[in-house]
Amino acid sequence: MRLVVIGGVAAGLSAASRARRLDRSLEIVVLEKTPHISYGACGLPYFIQGQVRSLDQLRVYTPEYFARERNIQVRTEAEVAAISHARREVALPRGERIHYDKLVIATGARRDFKRIRGADQPHVFKLDTWSDAERLEAFLKAKKPRRAVIAGAGYIGLEAAEALRAQGLEVILYEAGADVLGRSDPWLTKIVARHLERCRVTLRLNSAVTELPACDLAIVACGLKPNIDLAADAGIELGRSGAIRTSDHMETSFSGVFAAGDCSETMHLVSGSPGWFPLGTTANKAGRVAGACAAGARERFAGVVGTSIVRVCGLGVATTGLSEQQARQSGFDPVSVSIEALDRARYFHGRATEVRLTADRRTGRLLGGAVIGEHGVEGRVNVVATALHQRLPVEDFAQLDLAYAPPFSTVHDPLLVAAHELLKLLH
Amino acid sequence: MRLVVIGGVAAGLSAASRARRLDRSLEIVVLEKTPHISYGACGLPYFIQGQVRSLDQLRVYTPEYFARERNIQVRTEAEVAAISHARREVALPRGERIHYDKLVIATGARRDFKRIRGADQPHVFKLDTWSDAERLEAFLKAKKPRRAVIAGAGYIGLEAAEALRAQGLEVILYEAGADVLGRSDPWLTKIVARHLERCRVTLRLNSAVTELPACDLAIVACGLKPNIDLAADAGIELGRSGAIRTSDHMETSFSGVFAAGDCSETMHLVSGSPGWFPLGTTANKAGRVAGACAAGARERFAGVVGTSIVRVCGLGVATTGLSEQQARQSGFDPVSVSIEALDRARYFHGRATEVRLTADRRTGRLLGGAVIGEHGVEGRVNVVATALHQRLPVEDFAQLDLAYAPPFSTVHDPLLVAAHELLKLLH
Repeated sequence: MRLVVIGGVAAGLSAASRARRLDRSLEIVVLEKTPHISYGACGLPYFIQGQVRSLDQLRVYTPEYFARERNIQVRTEAEVAAISHARREVALPRGERIHYDKLVIATGARRDFKRIRGADQPHVFKLDTWSDAERLEAFLKAKKPRRAVIAGAGYIGLEAAEALRAQGLEVILYEAGADVLGRSDPWLTKIVARHLERCRVTLRLNSAVTELPACDLAIVACGLKPNIDLAADAGIELGRSGAIRTSDHMETSFSGVFAAGDCSETMHLVSGSPGWFPLGTTANKAGRVAGACAAGARERFAGVVGTSIVRVCGLGVATTGLSEQQARQSGFDPVSVSIEALDRARYFHGRATEVRLTADRRTGRLLGGAVIGEHGVEGRVNVVATALHQRLPVEDFAQLDLAYAPPFSTVHDPLLVAAHELLKLLH
Repeated sequence: MRLVVIGGVAAGLSAASRARRLDRSLEIVVLEKTPHISYGACGLPYFIQGQVRSLDQLRVYTPEYFARERNIQVRTEAEVAAISHARREVALPRGERIHYDKLVIATGARRDFKRIRGADQPHVFKLDTWSDAERLEAFLKAKKPRRAVIAGAGYIGLEAAEALRAQGLEVILYEAGADVLGRSDPWLTKIVARHLERCRVTLRLNSAVTELPACDLAIVACGLKPNIDLAADAGIELGRSGAIRTSDHMETSFSGVFAAGDCSETMHLVSGSPGWFPLGTTANKAGRVAGACAAGARERFAGVVGTSIVRVCGLGVATTGLSEQQARQSGFDPVSVSIEALDRARYFHGRATEVRLTADRRTGRLLGGAVIGEHGVEGRVNVVATALHQRLPVEDFAQLDLAYAPPFSTVHDPLLVAAHELLKLLH
């Protein structure tokens, strides 16, 4: 029995490792098209910023480690050209064919540059892969650019903005949509925009970049697409989001073929619909389940609640679940509150933190939340995320037994203050 | 209609304020035996430590504020001597009687000094009230004590140890039981003991203080008891813990008489049994419900999961739910794991954090957890607490969609690493 995994970063290697743990006799081959596997891609902006001194600090495991410790064969620079499921084969460019019994597709995502005229120039970069970061860093050192343009105010665009500001560049950040972070949340966008202004990043909303503006350096952080050509060409079904559709065992429409990570859909546990949520944490979880099921186990990946966090010029910005607009689009009757409160006791340098919670008027169920601040943001959004996993009503949320001591929080935690405000609107 | 509230700190003032919000016409009288109301008692150790510069910084509201803004009459130095429920009256020492239609008892807790010989000396202090802190601080300034003894390694004892070490005193901390924080958790006790040793606090476990050892200063932080004499003398039923028994509307065995805060029991949502959990956050929540129900609403206080956090010489120590020993005593078949992992990416100064999770072998349900570390401790314990509120199985807990970006966490959050380890023992 041979398991072939296409893709050697988060989802692919999680799948391979999990399969090995469950089946010691399986032959496992991972095919990675780039020279680099198993690195912390989320750290790339911090390499550009100077927080990570060398890209090697982001490397987690080497192909040799996988061979020696996990009996997993990892081949780099091995791009798969086609999948032939009838023959249970993947084809490599030079005519090599590799048979599989089980297949995991973890081909990730890619940037679609085509819509931007001028994006083929040498001062235009992405910030998605090891090589992207390597090239960008070399360019920064060699050319000392002063004026940067970033296209896309998703998390990569915002992290790139922080990184380039830290390196002293002028930054103009263009976003095609009306909101940052693709969240449809004017409240959040307003706070982030205000903060960016303070940090002297120019944010231009509703400004799709179709032609590259004059600048010394550009980063394309928009147009992310699931990498599905290989799967689609093989006849594997896609979902409505355009990513590969899977069951909760991460199995595709082809029996024995699994998909995980940024190329595939994930169930959103609040909206109840599958969608495309390309994040490393999700890739690891889904990959793990794909690997387990490829090895014959019957594990499930229930889905996500849509949690994300990003640091924007020092400010923590975290969201989970649905924004009010997203909730309305998902058929709920949403109501929201926003509050500002101290994140800790004042005498422990407590600073303002902003919390927004959204609930469904009909059922009283919590639907989403956002937390913005300097301290404790990740912990608070995780509490909301945990509640969302279990469809907690706001009434119960307001009574959560959260930890309090002055160095850590306030006696009325900002989350509970927001929940009580929300309750007033629900009754 | 008149509501009388006995006690003017956390539970009492929460009750009074909530009753006022629901009923604008109610007459509300709060009787507080000390000269001080509405202050952050949890901040008192930090006043001793020097982090809080003046006790006034801990004051939240004044009696004048309550009179003016909430139409609530707060009388200080008004100790209630007796409750006569047959006459719906409380008696004050000088013969004054005050009629009530509804009564909220929020008499708090007190230290029982009686068992300690020598505790009546002038260098022996508590650290529970405004006056305690005032006296202790004056003593520290005037006498410059060098060798301190603390009796009791609960959170007050541990906070007092940090405060006195910060002031340069030698500290010996005595604990009657085998564990710190009353948690029956040898794992936790070992880590805290090791840390105290590093901070040069001498911890003596299994060492009840029956006679005060030689020292320049002693703090009694053991023997906390619910203040129930007034209620018990009136004939109000107590629970098995010795605190006042209530319904989930916080009503006592006397109709129209409510109790909340450190004098009363609270349901423990994991063990399923009521117990005594004297904490400010719980007091506020229970007080709120007591006030609402006293004003005629039918709100419920579901209970707590037993969350607490304390800073021990710079280290965050947080627990929630049941420890393994507590779980066994509650009739579960517990199994636990302990892991150590980075709390953030290494290049963001990630430090080791320790996580322990306990689950029930029969049902796979998560029963409790502890988190110890320098960063993110409160957020992680709150995630466990939120899961406990909803009886989450470990299998679901392991798939929680927690926020990740390198400045905030690691891609495999320590909580999820622990959950996966625990799953291995459950299957």
